[in-house]
Amino acid sequence: MTNLSEQIADAINNKTKPRGALGALEDLAARVATIQGTVTPVLAKPAILVFAADHGLAREPVSAYPREVTAQMALNILAGGAGINVFCRQHGIDVVLTDAGVDWPGDKPEGMVDHWMGPGTASSLAGDAMTADEVEGCLTAGADVVDQEVDPDSTIVGFGELGIGNTSAASLIVSALTGLPLADCVGPGTGLAGSGLAKKLELLGAVQARHPQPATGRAALAMFGGYELAQMSGAMRRAYQTGRILMIDGFVATAALLAVWRDEPGILDNAVFCHESGEPGHTRVLAFLGVKPLVSLGMRLGEGTGCAVAYPLIASAVAFLTEMASFDQAGVSTGEPEAQAA
Amino acid sequence: MTNLSEQIADAINNKTKPRGALGALEDLAARVATIQGTVTPVLAKPAILVFAADHGLAREPVSAYPREVTAQMALNILAGGAGINVFCRQHGIDVVLTDAGVDWPGDKPEGMVDHWMGPGTASSLAGDAMTADEVEGCLTAGADVVDQEVDPDSTIVGFGELGIGNTSAASLIVSALTGLPLADCVGPGTGLAGSGLAKKLELLGAVQARHPQPATGRAALAMFGGYELAQMSGAMRRAYQTGRILMIDGFVATAALLAVWRDEPGILDNAVFCHESGEPGHTRVLAFLGVKPLVSLGMRLGEGTGCAVAYPLIASAVAFLTEMASFDQAGVSTGEPEAQAA
Repeated sequence: MTNLSEQIADAINNKTKPRGALGALEDLAARVATIQGTVTPVLAKPAILVFAADHGLAREPVSAYPREVTAQMALNILAGGAGINVFCRQHGIDVVLTDAGVDWPGDKPEGMVDHWMGPGTASSLAGDAMTADEVEGCLTAGADVVDQEVDPDSTIVGFGELGIGNTSAASLIVSALTGLPLADCVGPGTGLAGSGLAKKLELLGAVQARHPQPATGRAALAMFGGYELAQMSGAMRRAYQTGRILMIDGFVATAALLAVWRDEPGILDNAVFCHESGEPGHTRVLAFLGVKPLVSLGMRLGEGTGCAVAYPLIASAVAFLTEMASFDQAGVSTGEPEAQAA
Repeated sequence: MTNLSEQIADAINNKTKPRGALGALEDLAARVATIQGTVTPVLAKPAILVFAADHGLAREPVSAYPREVTAQMALNILAGGAGINVFCRQHGIDVVLTDAGVDWPGDKPEGMVDHWMGPGTASSLAGDAMTADEVEGCLTAGADVVDQEVDPDSTIVGFGELGIGNTSAASLIVSALTGLPLADCVGPGTGLAGSGLAKKLELLGAVQARHPQPATGRAALAMFGGYELAQMSGAMRRAYQTGRILMIDGFVATAALLAVWRDEPGILDNAVFCHESGEPGHTRVLAFLGVKPLVSLGMRLGEGTGCAVAYPLIASAVAFLTEMASFDQAGVSTGEPEAQAA
């Protein structure tokens, strides 16, 4: 009896194709098979968990959009009109929207999972964005979303977010946890340019200067926020603990993953980086982690949209491994590259 | 009344997302809308046309696989076990397999569209691979496949191929029609390496040396073959003439497109380059054409598999344009990047 990794390699190499001819899909199939511990992995009941919250720092000029857009876009997702709804309908992916701490102008709407921590974090320019207790509460809340809102049979979960100002929090977390210079981690977010972008970098430099170097992922979350990042971190950790495949979206989702990875590096084994964001810091953090994203389409919308559009590629990887004929089954002659190349 | 391109740009910019935040999907949506002449384009009844044939040149050592694999893999596709079948089932894409000239060891099988031109082309090392009449016959046959085998309501058609030795023909066509050095256009194909690859390049150099510079795409097809490339060219041209979106697969399919483009450059307007092949010459010819592929997964299987796995991204582009809420519809505040950046 050969071991699992040999069985997986044999299964892939015996498919009716030249060795390696499915490129990154072969690596992906091997990873999914390894995560599930079988040469016949299954993608079942995919879900994308979207966490929404506001940021105290967003009262400063760090975004091209006003802070109330967080609440408006949450309602848009609830109504089914946002990008994430469109792409998830296309692929039969369940969307779960959690209110981690939106600053609602009036009553909270019905229909969101309620883990509301308050009307946005404190400003990281004035002190910590969250208390240690709030961070723990968010991590637990995120785990609860996985336990209570995701189908127990689901084998693959993606993560998205919504929160004006959250690329700023993500930049600070990424810089603190990777050691990358802050300037390499700050980008246009929803669309800042020119002097707006320069102001954002200056402001985030001031935030960074008033905080010590965080010793843990939790500490980084407390310093810089936000509620939605910390709940994502908790949900990612729980999805990993339950053996699921994790679809990681763009820059903000990768920051939430880093906060777990810092304390629990094994989570990378289950993480599929779905896309390379148009946010320039994302390219750098992917290189830092030594990982290659599935697609690079210049998207920078958040909401988990990068997971949703890349999901069919993961399904293709599983499909070729489980459905394609082997050389034996199809009666196809195998190549002899060594002999021919000699 | 604004013109169509302004209407398309407005429709895209008014969706509930920051401007440009869907990256390449926005460009793709605009292209599809332009091809169909409407801000509400439709993808209907997608099909991938696969053409199979053998090559006289494949009696020389240009491939890691023996020539009989063309027939065996055609049977594999007929039986539904090949990569293209798996990915097309996944996405509801119709697969049409045409026998352009397979060298069957016995009787021809049932179930393929029959445009058999003979048991493989002549060897381009000895003379022209095809006569001018054969080229015309293939172009007509390819057009007939579109007219007779593709649903009249189909708005999007992809192109794939199968033929041991056909990366060699493609290398010669690409070098002749683009002026790229032959060495830049020759790669491992199904898996040659080391001295096998060096021998392939030497042999193709000898083929190139015995032919004049072709003045037209048709002339290049006649010189280098093969039947499946020429029928693909004919099918691509007909799909373009009927206003369809063309999904272009890898290196061999791009060579077939070049043979049309040389005489009818407008075809590029309807061509979506679905993936960047692992075959190194493909990267160079995409750069020559100034086009960007949707995905780059290191795939080099042919059969149209790159079209099939990238198809959902085209569907995502159309879906966001036609289904996503606008700022007005959703009551979301628009950003003012100019004001904020000032």
